[in-house]
Amino acid sequence: MAAQRRIDLVLDSVKRLLRIGATANLLNLLQKQHPADLAQIFSALADKDREAAFSLLADRNGRLAMEAVSELGPEAGAGLLATRSAEEIAKLAQEIPSDDAAALIDNLPEDLSGAVLNLMRPKESGVVENLLEYDEQTAGRIMNPHVFALSEDITVGEAITELQTNRDVEMVFYLYVVDERRHLVGVTSLRRLLLVSPETPLKRIMTAELISARVDMDQEEVARQVASYNLLAIPVVDEENKLVGVITVDDVIDVIKDEATEDIYRLAGVAGDERAFTPAGESLRKRLPWLGINLITAFLAASVVALFENTIDQITALAVFMPIVAGMGGNAATQTLTVIVRGIALGELTWGNARKALFKEAIVGVSNGVILGLVAAAVAWATRGSATLGLVLCAAMIINMFVAATAGTLIPLGLRAADIDPALASSVFITTLTDVIGFFSFLGLATLFMRYLVPGL
Amino acid sequence: MAAQRRIDLVLDSVKRLLRIGATANLLNLLQKQHPADLAQIFSALADKDREAAFSLLADRNGRLAMEAVSELGPEAGAGLLATRSAEEIAKLAQEIPSDDAAALIDNLPEDLSGAVLNLMRPKESGVVENLLEYDEQTAGRIMNPHVFALSEDITVGEAITELQTNRDVEMVFYLYVVDERRHLVGVTSLRRLLLVSPETPLKRIMTAELISARVDMDQEEVARQVASYNLLAIPVVDEENKLVGVITVDDVIDVIKDEATEDIYRLAGVAGDERAFTPAGESLRKRLPWLGINLITAFLAASVVALFENTIDQITALAVFMPIVAGMGGNAATQTLTVIVRGIALGELTWGNARKALFKEAIVGVSNGVILGLVAAAVAWATRGSATLGLVLCAAMIINMFVAATAGTLIPLGLRAADIDPALASSVFITTLTDVIGFFSFLGLATLFMRYLVPGL
Repeated sequence: MAAQRRIDLVLDSVKRLLRIGATANLLNLLQKQHPADLAQIFSALADKDREAAFSLLADRNGRLAMEAVSELGPEAGAGLLATRSAEEIAKLAQEIPSDDAAALIDNLPEDLSGAVLNLMRPKESGVVENLLEYDEQTAGRIMNPHVFALSEDITVGEAITELQTNRDVEMVFYLYVVDERRHLVGVTSLRRLLLVSPETPLKRIMTAELISARVDMDQEEVARQVASYNLLAIPVVDEENKLVGVITVDDVIDVIKDEATEDIYRLAGVAGDERAFTPAGESLRKRLPWLGINLITAFLAASVVALFENTIDQITALAVFMPIVAGMGGNAATQTLTVIVRGIALGELTWGNARKALFKEAIVGVSNGVILGLVAAAVAWATRGSATLGLVLCAAMIINMFVAATAGTLIPLGLRAADIDPALASSVFITTLTDVIGFFSFLGLATLFMRYLVPGL
Repeated sequence: MAAQRRIDLVLDSVKRLLRIGATANLLNLLQKQHPADLAQIFSALADKDREAAFSLLADRNGRLAMEAVSELGPEAGAGLLATRSAEEIAKLAQEIPSDDAAALIDNLPEDLSGAVLNLMRPKESGVVENLLEYDEQTAGRIMNPHVFALSEDITVGEAITELQTNRDVEMVFYLYVVDERRHLVGVTSLRRLLLVSPETPLKRIMTAELISARVDMDQEEVARQVASYNLLAIPVVDEENKLVGVITVDDVIDVIKDEATEDIYRLAGVAGDERAFTPAGESLRKRLPWLGINLITAFLAASVVALFENTIDQITALAVFMPIVAGMGGNAATQTLTVIVRGIALGELTWGNARKALFKEAIVGVSNGVILGLVAAAVAWATRGSATLGLVLCAAMIINMFVAATAGTLIPLGLRAADIDPALASSVFITTLTDVIGFFSFLGLATLFMRYLVPGL
């Protein structure tokens, strides 16, 4: 929290210096910040201030400015970058690793990104263009193609010399070993180099069994590998097992966060790339389709109520209690759904052990239904003086919570089996179902037992 | 996906070998697995099979068995471990790092954990007990206290010798430097040691400015630091800045996943530690309170409907359309809430920039209300032949979606300011509010404009 307070203080100073136009002091202050802190400061500034601060910094310290832009994430970062000319962007893009540059350039408006790629140094733009050829959300897209590799035929001493001469390669903790045609054949570590004599052949101290990712592997799977095997980096190979890049754990952390955000969002019907400060128009465009689908399903549920208008006409009290049945089913379904969807995302739940989960959820659902149904029945009986109304309410709640539990388990598992993200579509199915079943069971039972319900209740 | 298929195949073999009692083959197969894969296999087995497989492995290869148990997570891991005697657990616990052992022992039944600590070698149990003294979810609890440190007064050559003689310390990528009283004074890397001559004083190549975590720092904050500064590990210091441990990025990944799960769960009213295979009784106990609160709020909303029973009695069609107003408000509120809660969790949203977010959400809310309200109004008019009913429906939806948007922004921010987790309590407040406002605005407007509504509609 101390770090947050420090950033808030810097933010206040930045705002003040911008207001009084003290550019020299402002530049001085900005240059002292860590890129991650700068990103946080940028995102908290008003649009005009953010652009002013970024311009100022970009002119003086392009690398730091670009690192901050990278930390903002591809969308927000590209938005800020797009305020500059193509020439400037091309120059700035060369200050950061090609994978980060590729992510930013990919998010620029199309004509601008084309112009930028044309203006970049041919070698750099080639690397960036290659990265952009891989599908989004694959290993190829997030890897760093500048991977340091050692030949399998050298000695430990030669390896150390090579490390000493390549001072500018990115931080190396794993040392990947390749054959003469750059096939990945093993891995060793800096530490192990130090533990043996310099004449030892590198082959002798390398581990041949290593975990790698194919360029076309889904980034979520890459993250799962890195996380479950506690890796600091994973080498990326092409279809011939040639080493083409490396993904470091910090990129994996970003993937894990993004995927978690996506899961949280999808359960709520929000697009994965929406953020708190996405412009209102864009948010509206992204949220409206989901609400539109919900409106259709709401009318579907309403039409179930309409089937029983005669019943409601005779016993108005039913209109008072019917949202309780539907709502409680929806809440119980959301609980089940969330546990199941997260279980699938964390890899704990598969078709193989689905029966066990289904059985458990059914027990929990019925138990919840019985307990809460009895409470609701008691309240209905006490306030309305009709035991039958209470019984109908209780029975409808048990039915609806049983349906909520089984559907909340089976729908996400079924979607997963059909290769559809279970988080995406589950919640709209589920709440429609609990509304429809809730209204139908409650009003249906009430119609069946109409003559036992106090008339004009 | 290939990795998953391999694990499924191994799982099938494990089940088969257990069934036919081929323990030698089974042991052979288990010993070839990575701890993370073993954990996945264990969690997919039925309870009896899991215990049998674990027993078998624990007797032969205690370290691997315990690494797998660690990977299962503290709760599930402790559950499996608790099937063994205190003596066996004490012996097995010494096979893994003390932080992992502490997490497991802490989750054992109380009498068993006491017995285990008594039986462990005094030195080891002391370390574990020390760790258990730190609060849960703090840096102290998740750090590894066996941290390798170099004295600031030695040369690079001496540092390399020290590394060569301490072969059993955990993987080192950052080398922390301490003064004679073990105060943390700097950091360097293995790589930098190789780039200078052996006589160089270590002080000369270390970075004095480094990011560290206090033992009492919240683990979520630790994760945020490691993630935003792209660190591979963070040193942990006590209140006097003495180096007491290190937290590596793999532990941070676990924290990030757990915190994401907690956020997802809390939004749905599920306890953070529930998993797909938590026993039914425990799940019921954890979910019931939330549903109980929801039942109370459902009755609150129902009592709003009850206020207007006379109106519904005259125009039954209102009972058909009222769930639409409440439901759409709830859906819109969930979207806003999710974006805001996630924005707070990712550190993008603070009180400082809250006004901007509020303004945006209000615009999106009203726009959604107008668009969807008009559609709903058209449907109501077309199906019921009453333009007034349509207008009342439209107006109520606009009001409710505006309330949903502003409350969906302000409630989580307010809870955060009051130091309550915004994900925890927001959704129950919000859905109650959208139900109450939805019913009240729709039925209230209908009552006001009763004489324009087609009687007996």
